[in-house]
Amino acid sequence: MDAYRQIVLAARPIGVPTLGNFRLATGPLPIPSDGQLLLRTRYLSLDPYMRGRMNDAKSYAAPVELGQVMEGEVIAEILETRHPSYRKGELVQGRIGWRTHAAVDADTVRRVETAGNSSTTALGVLGMPGFTAYAGMKVIGQPKIGETVVVAAASGPVGSLVGQLARIAGARAVGIAGGATKCAYVRDELRFDAAIDHRAEGFSEMLAAACPDGIDVYFENVGGPIWDAVLPLLNRYARVPVCGPVSHYNEAKPTGGSSAAETMVTVLRRSLLIRGFINTEFAADHYDSFLMELGPLVRSGEIRYREDISEGLEAAPSAFIDMLVGRNFGKALVRVS
Amino acid sequence: MDAYRQIVLAARPIGVPTLGNFRLATGPLPIPSDGQLLLRTRYLSLDPYMRGRMNDAKSYAAPVELGQVMEGEVIAEILETRHPSYRKGELVQGRIGWRTHAAVDADTVRRVETAGNSSTTALGVLGMPGFTAYAGMKVIGQPKIGETVVVAAASGPVGSLVGQLARIAGARAVGIAGGATKCAYVRDELRFDAAIDHRAEGFSEMLAAACPDGIDVYFENVGGPIWDAVLPLLNRYARVPVCGPVSHYNEAKPTGGSSAAETMVTVLRRSLLIRGFINTEFAADHYDSFLMELGPLVRSGEIRYREDISEGLEAAPSAFIDMLVGRNFGKALVRVS
Repeated sequence: MDAYRQIVLAARPIGVPTLGNFRLATGPLPIPSDGQLLLRTRYLSLDPYMRGRMNDAKSYAAPVELGQVMEGEVIAEILETRHPSYRKGELVQGRIGWRTHAAVDADTVRRVETAGNSSTTALGVLGMPGFTAYAGMKVIGQPKIGETVVVAAASGPVGSLVGQLARIAGARAVGIAGGATKCAYVRDELRFDAAIDHRAEGFSEMLAAACPDGIDVYFENVGGPIWDAVLPLLNRYARVPVCGPVSHYNEAKPTGGSSAAETMVTVLRRSLLIRGFINTEFAADHYDSFLMELGPLVRSGEIRYREDISEGLEAAPSAFIDMLVGRNFGKALVRVS
Repeated sequence: MDAYRQIVLAARPIGVPTLGNFRLATGPLPIPSDGQLLLRTRYLSLDPYMRGRMNDAKSYAAPVELGQVMEGEVIAEILETRHPSYRKGELVQGRIGWRTHAAVDADTVRRVETAGNSSTTALGVLGMPGFTAYAGMKVIGQPKIGETVVVAAASGPVGSLVGQLARIAGARAVGIAGGATKCAYVRDELRFDAAIDHRAEGFSEMLAAACPDGIDVYFENVGGPIWDAVLPLLNRYARVPVCGPVSHYNEAKPTGGSSAAETMVTVLRRSLLIRGFINTEFAADHYDSFLMELGPLVRSGEIRYREDISEGLEAAPSAFIDMLVGRNFGKALVRVS
C-alpha cells in the first residue's frame, strides 16, 4: 500500500495541457540517508504557476525537465526520521512535487504552522496563495479607507483573500468570477461589496457600474481581456500588483486585448503604479506578520476560504487542467493519502 | 513696438498639428491692477505635454479652449510692478502662455533661479524638463553602480539629463536618438556609454548589443516601438519611470506595437516596476535638492545641455510642430523679445 508513485512531465504542452502531457511512474520507496526524512504526502497543492514550469522558457524559475517529477508543494507526514529535530508522525510542508513519498534533507521542509487551523490552510489561505494576496496588498496595493479594490478569480485562493483584506482595510471590494455560483459565493460568503461575472454579456459596463468612484487597486492575477475593462476605470495614483496572468500561461506568446501603447499612455496620464512580484521576494519582511495577523482571523471565521479537493495522486493532472481553465471552485488540492 | 501679440488655439488638431491649428492675435497691452505685474516675455518654452492640452480629452490637466492662448511656461522681464515684493526689470518665470506680454497676479510667478547659469536653463536643464528627469530617476529609477539605464530622445532636455544622471550614479548610460548627428552628440558631448539611432536598420539588435547585461532602468519618455525593443531586455526588478509617451501624443487612441498582455506577462516574470508620473507630484519633496545638486554641476560643465532657439513669437507654431516630430536638436525655446 506504500508503493511509490509520482507524476512526471511526459511532454511539453502547447496551449492548455492535456492528460498526455503527464505520466504516472512507480517504483520502490525511497530510503532516507543520514539527516533526511522519509515523507508520505497527505495533500498536494495545485497552483497556476506550475503551468509556467512545464514550458522550456526563461522565467523566474527553472522549467521541469521531461521525465522529471512535476513541481509542487505538499503537506506530508514524517514516516521515518534520520534527523534529530524531527519526530515520526509530525506534519511538514515543502516543495516535494507530485508524488506519494520522498526522502528529503530535513532543511528543505518546515513544520506546518496554521495557528490552530486545518493543516490544509498551510497550502492555501495561510500558505503561498494567501501570502501572495497579503504581500501584494501590503507592499504594493496599500488599500485605504473608502478606496475601491478589484480582483479577478475572486473565488480562488488569492483573489478571495485580496477582497477580504480590502474589506478589512475599509475599502470597497469588487470581485470578478466565472459564473453565477462563484459570484454568489464571493458576494454572500466572502462578503465582497459586488461580484461580476466575466462571462456575462456587458461585463465591462457592469464592472464600471460596480465601481462608481473608479478603481484604486487592481490586483492582477488573471490577465487577458479583464485588463482592458479595468484600464479605463483606474484612478489617478492607482496601484496594480501583478502576481500571475494565468490566462496567458497557456500561450507561447501572450497576445490579444489592447496595445501596450494604450496601457503606457494610461500609466502616464493617471500616474499609475504597476509592479510585478513573486511572493518570495517579500517573505523575509512580511511572512511572520502574515501568519500572526491572519491565523486568528481565519480561525474566527472573519476570513473565509474554500477548498476544492480531488482524491488520489492520479487525479492531479485532470484537477490541474480544470484549475487552469477555471473549473475549480476554491483552492485546488489533491488528497494523496 | 510693445504691441501685444499672442498665439491662440484656432482648431483642434487631428494627428500631428499643422500651422492652421494656431492663429496670431493682437491687441492693446494689458494693464496690471493692484497686486499684479506687467510682464514682457523673453523666452517661451516648447514642451511635448502641450500637444495633450490641444485635445479635448480627459488628462491630468484641462485642455486649452478654442480661441484661448496656448499654454506654456516663459521667462519674462517685469515691465511694471504693482506688487511690493517685485522690482521693475527683475526676471520671473511662470505659465504665461504663448504671448508677448501679460498682466498677472504676482503669486502666479516666481523669480528665476539658476544658481549662476544662463536664465534659459530655468526652462530646461534646471527647469521642468530637468526636474522631470531628476525626480523620475531619484524616486522611481534609482540607478545603482554597474546597472544599465536606457533612455530615448536622449539629445532632448529630459533624456540628456537622465543619461548624465545615470553616468554620475555609476551606471551605464545608453541613449536612443534619431540620426547620426544626435547620436554623436549624445556619445561625445553628453558622454553616454552608447547611443543608438532608432531610425537605423537593426535597431533592436543594436540596442541589445549595447546592453550586454540587460536593462535595469528604462526611462520611458517616447513610447511607441522602442518599448517593444526594450521589453525583452529588462532585467528582474527593472524600473520603468513613464513620463511622457510623446510618440502617442498625436494619436486619438494609442495603438501599434506589442500587446498589453505581453507587457503584463513580462511585468510578472521579471518583477518589473512601471510607474507613471507628472513631475509636479514630486516637487514638494525634491525640487530644492534638485536645484541645489544640479546647479553647480551645470555651471562646472559636468552636466551639459543644448538649446534649440527659434526667433520671434510667430515662429512658435512651426518650432512646436518640429519638436513633436523630432526635428529639434536640444531644448526647444522661442526668443520672444
